Amino acid sequence: MSKKIGIVGAGTAGLHLALYLQQNDVDVTLFSDKRAEEYASMRLPNTVAHFSVTIDREKALGVNHWQTGDVGYFGHHYYIGLPEPMRFYGDLRSPSRAVDYRLYLPALLTDFVERGGNVEYRAIQQEDYAALAEEFDLVVVSTGKGTGDMFPKIPELSPHTTPQRQLCVGIFKGIAQLPSRSVTMYFSPGAGEMIEIPTLTFNGMQNALVMENLPGGDLEILVQTKYDDDPEAFKTLLLEKLAKHYPTCFERIDQAEFDLANSSLDILQGGVVPAVRQTSIELENGTIAIALGDVQNTVDPMLGQGANAASHAAFVLGEEIVANDVFDARFVEKVDSRRNQRVHSATRWTNVMMANLENFPPEFGAFVGAVAQSPTLADTFTNNFNYPENQWDVFSSPERVAAFCASA
Amino acid sequence: MSKKIGIVGAGTAGLHLALYLQQNDVDVTLFSDKRAEEYASMRLPNTVAHFSVTIDREKALGVNHWQTGDVGYFGHHYYIGLPEPMRFYGDLRSPSRAVDYRLYLPALLTDFVERGGNVEYRAIQQEDYAALAEEFDLVVVSTGKGTGDMFPKIPELSPHTTPQRQLCVGIFKGIAQLPSRSVTMYFSPGAGEMIEIPTLTFNGMQNALVMENLPGGDLEILVQTKYDDDPEAFKTLLLEKLAKHYPTCFERIDQAEFDLANSSLDILQGGVVPAVRQTSIELENGTIAIALGDVQNTVDPMLGQGANAASHAAFVLGEEIVANDVFDARFVEKVDSRRNQRVHSATRWTNVMMANLENFPPEFGAFVGAVAQSPTLADTFTNNFNYPENQWDVFSSPERVAAFCASA
Repeated sequence: MSKKIGIVGAGTAGLHLALYLQQNDVDVTLFSDKRAEEYASMRLPNTVAHFSVTIDREKALGVNHWQTGDVGYFGHHYYIGLPEPMRFYGDLRSPSRAVDYRLYLPALLTDFVERGGNVEYRAIQQEDYAALAEEFDLVVVSTGKGTGDMFPKIPELSPHTTPQRQLCVGIFKGIAQLPSRSVTMYFSPGAGEMIEIPTLTFNGMQNALVMENLPGGDLEILVQTKYDDDPEAFKTLLLEKLAKHYPTCFERIDQAEFDLANSSLDILQGGVVPAVRQTSIELENGTIAIALGDVQNTVDPMLGQGANAASHAAFVLGEEIVANDVFDARFVEKVDSRRNQRVHSATRWTNVMMANLENFPPEFGAFVGAVAQSPTLADTFTNNFNYPENQWDVFSSPERVAAFCASA
Repeated sequence: MSKKIGIVGAGTAGLHLALYLQQNDVDVTLFSDKRAEEYASMRLPNTVAHFSVTIDREKALGVNHWQTGDVGYFGHHYYIGLPEPMRFYGDLRSPSRAVDYRLYLPALLTDFVERGGNVEYRAIQQEDYAALAEEFDLVVVSTGKGTGDMFPKIPELSPHTTPQRQLCVGIFKGIAQLPSRSVTMYFSPGAGEMIEIPTLTFNGMQNALVMENLPGGDLEILVQTKYDDDPEAFKTLLLEKLAKHYPTCFERIDQAEFDLANSSLDILQGGVVPAVRQTSIELENGTIAIALGDVQNTVDPMLGQGANAASHAAFVLGEEIVANDVFDARFVEKVDSRRNQRVHSATRWTNVMMANLENFPPEFGAFVGAVAQSPTLADTFTNNFNYPENQWDVFSSPERVAAFCASA
């Protein structure tokens, strides 16, 4: 039975799904609002690490153009800036990897096109979906642009109405890499967190700094101050804040070289309202529109869960599209029964970790103490960034946190 | 971390779970209201076939005492008693097997005891659960006896408030086996269905007849007439009804020998109200009681889905008990996310098939026509008795039935 699938949005979720369906000879059309050559001149869209579970999917798609030996990283350092600072390290069983999405997305889009993929280059608005419903047997919605509130929030999984952190995210040069490439997660009580990610960008390996600033805290000014208004003033402010809150990063900075890695486009400021949404709606003619990736699950970037959950969901959806001939409520139920443990856990775990870091309840203090003292626990916790459902197993209640600590 | 698990009920679900936990060195206590030696003198409790997915689990537990080469069956014959009768056959990829539960259950109970298992022989009533909650970290409820409405029904999965068929179920001698052992499913429009199952009982291989009689139809009298009141009259009535409604069974009957296989205990009459229930409650001290098997999912026996779904759920529950140290809402969520596709599909498919056979809508007529003409479809449909979620993929909407037929 022939089936025609339309995918709106060419982010990681849309591209992984399109490449998967192409590999399985399904008739697929990808809608992208940008051509491959337009990415180089755009503002940094985000900073994303792909864990090994995602790299394995890229290998299966034949699009793993970046060898982890060259650009990957091998574990997480943790710096807990309490009055008595704590530092510990956890190993990843297989390396992770971060590539600037202005390189990554056009590379995969080009792969899809060169393999004969059908791309329509236009932005889809909400009023366009009726026509797509006529053209396709299933419409996959994997960009939030133009969708408005097509997919209503699930209230019990969407507790927040405002961003939990004010984000200042950039790719910087002038920060020395650690001897063994690794992510560092920094915590500054009352101010926020920072994640330093070795990232391949236009001018080679640099460091992304994901600054997660508490609303009302000492670091929030990093979101309100614009680089373009006065680059030197911004750098001076940022260096001052790094020295105060994240000293073990600051000490690796060459202040003469320190700057945005390529251009003033290498910085993004704003905030994310975490949300989990219903996964499908019926369009006017009864065709199903199914949400994928950030459209289903909008997650703060602190723990790097968005793209990895999106890629997982893309493969589940791809496998079910191949396996099914009818795209109806039963189809959606099957997709959801396979993806939602991971997708929902990504959001639940991230939300709880943000609350834990803000409020530092006693069981979380005990957790930090336990992983700081047990390399086994630190490795398990670090490797489980691949598996948010395993993290949710640990963090969904104080009793579970205690059981994890006791397992050392 | 040590964990103490209590299992109330020693049916297939309770026994498979107890044996699984024993095999994995978990501290488990099984509550049974019967000793192994009491089964031989009880009334036939049901007639159950185990599909190969269940036999595989029995092999893993080391309790597969019955070789399918000796007692198994290899496919399903279908007899559609329309004015122009239709007959077709579907192959099972691996054989199924039916053993009288008065042999099967005590054999597994004995295995558990001989391996050092802890059994408490007493009936548990609802008022006993508070004490069990103090003794165990998790209480598994796998018998409906004494549970009342502990686990409320899920309305959208429990559409019926009365039995959909009046059941007359027995094990009979004097019916010649088919040349290659197989189940036969008979359909008599307006009257009901009958499933003939080669079954190992006390006096060797005989045939179970599962008569599923429509309320108000010509066969309902088989439920109202009691064998014990007048065995000869009952036999005469039954033979007359078999000759009329299920002639291809009747023609294999030696009337002189035909009778209940062992004794007047070999017959059971009654009805089942299909229901799907919530899977857990918190007992008074916060300990979770989790429903397993028929307690979660009460299903009409027509398609043989009850025990097989129960055994699947027992293994999922066993694996999660081994993997988890905390038995809380998250634990239940994980168990349910793994078992409910199969468990819910067993009920949904069975309910829809009963309605289809009663009402024979056009798409079901088309389905019967398609499988009668396509050995491939007949084999797929037959083998999918192992996988009710695959059957639900076919039967959940007329469009899906049509797609299945078109796949031939």
